[in-house]
Amino acid sequence: MIGRPKIYLAGPEVFLADAKAISGRKKELCADHGFEGLFPLDNDAPQTDASRDLTIYRANVAMIRQADCGIFNLTPFRGPHADVGTVFELGLLTGFGKPAFGYSNESQSLLERMKRDGQAAFDKATQQWLDASGMAIEDFGNADNLMIDACLAGQGHALVRNRSSEADPFTTLEGFVRCLELARQHFAASHSGRSPAYAR
Amino acid sequence: MIGRPKIYLAGPEVFLADAKAISGRKKELCADHGFEGLFPLDNDAPQTDASRDLTIYRANVAMIRQADCGIFNLTPFRGPHADVGTVFELGLLTGFGKPAFGYSNESQSLLERMKRDGQAAFDKATQQWLDASGMAIEDFGNADNLMIDACLAGQGHALVRNRSSEADPFTTLEGFVRCLELARQHFAASHSGRSPAYAR
Repeated sequence: MIGRPKIYLAGPEVFLADAKAISGRKKELCADHGFEGLFPLDNDAPQTDASRDLTIYRANVAMIRQADCGIFNLTPFRGPHADVGTVFELGLLTGFGKPAFGYSNESQSLLERMKRDGQAAFDKATQQWLDASGMAIEDFGNADNLMIDACLAGQGHALVRNRSSEADPFTTLEGFVRCLELARQHFAASHSGRSPAYAR
Repeated sequence: MIGRPKIYLAGPEVFLADAKAISGRKKELCADHGFEGLFPLDNDAPQTDASRDLTIYRANVAMIRQADCGIFNLTPFRGPHADVGTVFELGLLTGFGKPAFGYSNESQSLLERMKRDGQAAFDKATQQWLDASGMAIEDFGNADNLMIDACLAGQGHALVRNRSSEADPFTTLEGFVRCLELARQHFAASHSGRSPAYAR
């Protein structure tokens, strides 16, 4: 690794009208912590490209390859779970053998949130909580699907849960800053920038 | 590759009460097409394990490492998007450089479905469709987030969309069978079982 470690900045804030402002704040915070932030929207794909989605995909994958680690905004998005684009990228970066850090601007577990929102019913026959489609809701106390939580916890830094104000669930950055601190500790401990395989 | 190519079978059907029945049908269909199916629930983690979620995670990751490719059920789950556990595994397998095939038991695009379900409003100022949180809805005609669709399309086999009956959105297997046919074509063409890097 030459220069400051690079962090891929993943999250659903790419869909916000002021995404560029948030990416700017995240990159400043990265610099404050000794990192360089890489934000997907910095890949300016030509608007006229007929296969613009594939162009963006390949630019994002190239950026994840270039990164030394990633920080993932796993705040629930359009339902009880994290944004699938962000989660795909978490899997990809993990498959590339790079460390991942993640946060959610919700403090409750998946099951607690689904109960709170009237999306969970207890089934006496199977002694499980089920969703509206009769499918089991995981009951590990995790923030989301176990593949997400265990990916992070298995690396020694569990998903950071930090309840935001209702008004601002996608832009609050306390959890992001906590991930930057975890990343700083990680790189201070490892020096190499590539610890042993994370996808164990 | 020795013996039949192995396919990792990912999808939210792990949460169904009759998951074992569905995994059995999927594995039979794999065998009919010359493959061996690997289903996550075949990783029987001990029920008493205090960190059972991490045990399951590591067993699933090991199964994905062992697989020659994957077939992903990307049917919308608990909202307009695919199951995040399945999508994490799609990213991971892609990061491992293995080919992925995917299907959805919905034929409409993400935007069409969100319009249909009253979850999309057109914003004249930005000329974009927005969700209830004011976040842009992708308008590429894709089934889901571009990272999912482009991952598959970029490999030459787009996400298979196959509308199921309302009653049976997670268990219909027409799209799965189409993916098996695509996988058979892929392995007939490549022989090696490992074509050049898929995460381009």
